[in-house]
Amino acid sequence: MIRYGYLGPAGTFTEAALRSVPGADEAELVPCASVPAALEAVRGGELDGAMVPLENSVEGSVATTLDELAHGDPLQVVREALVPVGFNLLARPGTTTADVRVVATHPHAEAQCRRWLRTSLPDAEVVLAPSTAEAAKAVAEGRYDAAVAAPIAAGHYGLVALAEDVQDNEGAVTRFVLVSQPGPPPAPTGADRTTLFAFIADDHTGALLALLTEFAVRGINLTRIESRPSGDGLGRYFFSIDCDGHLTEARVGEALAALHRTCADVRVLGSYPRADGVAAQVPAGTTDGDYGAATAWLTGLREGG
Amino acid sequence: MIRYGYLGPAGTFTEAALRSVPGADEAELVPCASVPAALEAVRGGELDGAMVPLENSVEGSVATTLDELAHGDPLQVVREALVPVGFNLLARPGTTTADVRVVATHPHAEAQCRRWLRTSLPDAEVVLAPSTAEAAKAVAEGRYDAAVAAPIAAGHYGLVALAEDVQDNEGAVTRFVLVSQPGPPPAPTGADRTTLFAFIADDHTGALLALLTEFAVRGINLTRIESRPSGDGLGRYFFSIDCDGHLTEARVGEALAALHRTCADVRVLGSYPRADGVAAQVPAGTTDGDYGAATAWLTGLREGG
Amino acid sequence: MIRYGYLGPAGTFTEAALRSVPGADEAELVPCASVPAALEAVRGGELDGAMVPLENSVEGSVATTLDELAHGDPLQVVREALVPVGFNLLARPGTTTADVRVVATHPHAEAQCRRWLRTSLPDAEVVLAPSTAEAAKAVAEGRYDAAVAAPIAAGHYGLVALAEDVQDNEGAVTRFVLVSQPGPPPAPTGADRTTLFAFIADDHTGALLALLTEFAVRGINLTRIESRPSGDGLGRYFFSIDCDGHLTEARVGEALAALHRTCADVRVLGSYPRADGVAAQVPAGTTDGDYGAATAWLTGLREGG
Amino acid sequence: MIRYGYLGPAGTFTEAALRSVPGADEAELVPCASVPAALEAVRGGELDGAMVPLENSVEGSVATTLDELAHGDPLQVVREALVPVGFNLLARPGTTTADVRVVATHPHAEAQCRRWLRTSLPDAEVVLAPSTAEAAKAVAEGRYDAAVAAPIAAGHYGLVALAEDVQDNEGAVTRFVLVSQPGPPPAPTGADRTTLFAFIADDHTGALLALLTEFAVRGINLTRIESRPSGDGLGRYFFSIDCDGHLTEARVGEALAALHRTCADVRVLGSYPRADGVAAQVPAGTTDGDYGAATAWLTGLREGG
Repeated sequence: MIRYGYLGPAGTFTEAALRSVPGADEAELVPCASVPAALEAVRGGELDGAMVPLENSVEGSVATTLDELAHGDPLQVVREALVPVGFNLLARPGTTTADVRVVATHPHAEAQCRRWLRTSLPDAEVVLAPSTAEAAKAVAEGRYDAAVAAPIAAGHYGLVALAEDVQDNEGAVTRFVLVSQPGPPPAPTGADRTTLFAFIADDHTGALLALLTEFAVRGINLTRIESRPSGDGLGRYFFSIDCDGHLTEARVGEALAALHRTCADVRVLGSYPRADGVAAQVPAGTTDGDYGAATAWLTGLREGG
Repeated sequence: MIRYGYLGPAGTFTEAALRSVPGADEAELVPCASVPAALEAVRGGELDGAMVPLENSVEGSVATTLDELAHGDPLQVVREALVPVGFNLLARPGTTTADVRVVATHPHAEAQCRRWLRTSLPDAEVVLAPSTAEAAKAVAEGRYDAAVAAPIAAGHYGLVALAEDVQDNEGAVTRFVLVSQPGPPPAPTGADRTTLFAFIADDHTGALLALLTEFAVRGINLTRIESRPSGDGLGRYFFSIDCDGHLTEARVGEALAALHRTCADVRVLGSYPRADGVAAQVPAGTTDGDYGAATAWLTGLREGG
Repeated sequence: MIRYGYLGPAGTFTEAALRSVPGADEAELVPCASVPAALEAVRGGELDGAMVPLENSVEGSVATTLDELAHGDPLQVVREALVPVGFNLLARPGTTTADVRVVATHPHAEAQCRRWLRTSLPDAEVVLAPSTAEAAKAVAEGRYDAAVAAPIAAGHYGLVALAEDVQDNEGAVTRFVLVSQPGPPPAPTGADRTTLFAFIADDHTGALLALLTEFAVRGINLTRIESRPSGDGLGRYFFSIDCDGHLTEARVGEALAALHRTCADVRVLGSYPRADGVAAQVPAGTTDGDYGAATAWLTGLREGG
Repeated sequence: MIRYGYLGPAGTFTEAALRSVPGADEAELVPCASVPAALEAVRGGELDGAMVPLENSVEGSVATTLDELAHGDPLQVVREALVPVGFNLLARPGTTTADVRVVATHPHAEAQCRRWLRTSLPDAEVVLAPSTAEAAKAVAEGRYDAAVAAPIAAGHYGLVALAEDVQDNEGAVTRFVLVSQPGPPPAPTGADRTTLFAFIADDHTGALLALLTEFAVRGINLTRIESRPSGDGLGRYFFSIDCDGHLTEARVGEALAALHRTCADVRVLGSYPRADGVAAQVPAGTTDGDYGAATAWLTGLREGG
């Protein structure tokens, strides 16, 4: 039986993301204590895969996920999932909003509901919990008055919603990735994404320009670029990048190989279908057909055709 | 009397950063509940300035600070401070390491001591607190067994160190900025930094390349570039940028004006001396003297000299 | 009385170009023996201006003109003229095509009619003359059988056309410039061209890329770029450039000033209306209004607005 | 017996260039009436190769050669030769400088000796001849008083030197290329040059920047870039380019293939040893070894290694 881990406990958005994977209902779903714990279990073979959050449209990237994927034994991203984020204010039955003195939630949820909390519960203390589900559980146990949590946590912990959709920005979305041990990438679909880390050789503006140029000359659009500290001191970074296209495509392969040649290090996490199904734009001159024709022409030149 | 706020409570690294400002010992130092609260108090005139964390050499940038500075009424950065980060494991006198079941700390501290915690306290539960000082206070109140916190928190809360320097990376540093209401920038020193936000008009690779090119053609080195979600959906970002140089210098002024012309929006937070005193490299052809000579020459051309 | 020189003798395309200048019919028109002679006479004050060929749509640029303008005392281009180039085969009355053994013409005319000559007069010898008008004159004097020359040369020298429009490419055009001593440029019209020479500091690919980038970041289109040997040995060049726009416009002025700062030398020959009246494309963010707004904003920043 | 053509007549610098080719003394050397004639004879198989001038360090490129190589059936450059250019003023024995009223020479020689002619023979008329050797021959026949020609022309035509080294710039050099029918390129030597024509798809600044970027990102230095009119009207060009390296090298091959993909057309004339033996600089990350390693790494990624 397939075993998938996810950032637990049960009742989080991550569980919802994992349940969207075909076949998840026949797999064993294992809540993990943390992103590092989930990834280590994949590396160690105890799990076949793990669903972890990568970025949120309001909060930005999840630093822990990026840093854990960038270091340690390589892992592969095989799938992504997008989950709309909506928070409810959950409490034990019988509680009223006026009773709420202490609200528990996860730091990312706090960030996404900050304005609402300041406005609607100006006098409440906000306590941070390791997850929104833990916050809900703590409320069920009577430790806090209310939790800002995912709607599905209510059923898990016997709570009711005092308010719904309390996030400050409508339409927030979290992007999750399903990570496994390295292997061949899923077949290209025409609407794929490639995820990688590039460690540039020095920290000048020119090095970042050069890196972007390797993508630009081959007509590859970047959909996310994040700098992360390398841990070697302020001002030293590596880059976490998502680009359009699949590593088996010629233009993407040539760009990745160029990074391999010119960067201090490159780690490719994989190519996989975009959850939103948006097809990559492939500018004139960069299709696999164009590459094939150019290679044939070059071979002819070299052979003196 | 001057009133400076800082991300409280007392006993945090932020307080230490604020105390490094000349004149801080004659000012009133006001702990604030959060970065947003500190910045709002500056905007409202209740504080003359506020010290807030901007980035950490291990954890990366502080998303809340960036997002709060990027939106709302404009503020100005007038100074930066670098504080080496070292954590101790603090407990009530009489506690031994073997007694520690629950450790409280702030999420950033947790991230920086994660390996140590996993190795040295493999069975302990880690509880997240709003600050390392709150964690120490909670330990003093008997709510948790130990706290990972700043060394100076021990004295504030009557705790002792069970272990010192428990951070995973030696030499971690946090960079703080002192923020005030907008005004003329501090005079240039030759070792200055300029901090800004650029909101690019569209989200293509080309727009980021164009933005970097505006700095590169004028010989200006970027020391930090971070993408942050704009809040308009996945894949839409703005950029938080630090560059060498002072906005009163010709090359920096021309670059900023170019961003003003070509970006959807630019917010300049200010120019201020670098805390490390590293002088900017100014390539041939980009000094103020070069700009002055070029302007005089152009004037001659236009007048038909 | 105004005295204009032109590359003589009478009856050339250059005379036709000069006659298209408003006021030319009231000026004294002086044929000069060569482009260098014409330019020297302008430098020495004997002429108020001189019309010289700059480039031809088939033959390319006129090296002598470029080299003479690039060196020596500076001169200014104040006007351009476009003359369609059509050649006739001219001979003395009574000559038939079968009689033509030796054809005289100028090297550029020879280049533009080469295919026709090879096909229609395969056995004729082609002799090179200093100008098509000299060739026609030599035919009138009986030295050669026919001349490939400008149509108007027939009347000047009493010849008739054995064949008309013998050029290989339909629609060939020669571009001439009217050169005077330096002075204020003509007022901008919205459809202007700026002509300059850039001497790059070293001969690497990077230096040319940097030069082009100074134009590209400011949205300025180049309409001609020619490399010319600097005379310091093979592989060392300077660049002759035409770009859209007028040097009194902000984007053009800033680009020229950038070249002044970063090139070994820049010589601007002037800005003047395009003969074809094609308006410059001015991308968003690069109008004089955009520049003015950016400068005002920058001033505000510096003053602490 | 091998038959090599050259731009004749005998006694020109081109003959000297051809005689520098190993094996030339055992081949039949055939003077041709013009560059087009020489190239057509190679195309038609009447010659095994032809030596033609490509560029001169003072005069610039030879437009006829470039245009004839760019169009028509493809040809290959297999070798280059550098010949120092020194001109003598040649006359019939008994002539003195004071006797010289009419000087014959080729337009390029005239350009390179213009200052000397203006200064030393201010009253002499200059007549243009199809080659310096023709000019010398015409002097021998009594048609003109003196010729500016290559030193070796004196012996061919029974003339004597009235003045030696009359060129304005010391150290001028002409570069010739030996052209044959297409075939495999000569083996790489580490000090090679590649010659090509690129026809860009449109005539904007951006297209030229993009073309240069394809070389720059792969660390390939350009040693010559010339724009030539495409013949489709003013402002429309193609580019004649020399770059360092050999088309069998990975970085050069990838750049050429990129031009094939993105330009309207590319014509590669070949790769051949540099006559000056200067080795190509190959930046870190662009050696064949780097390319091989990157390809192996990419194959591993695709196979899921």
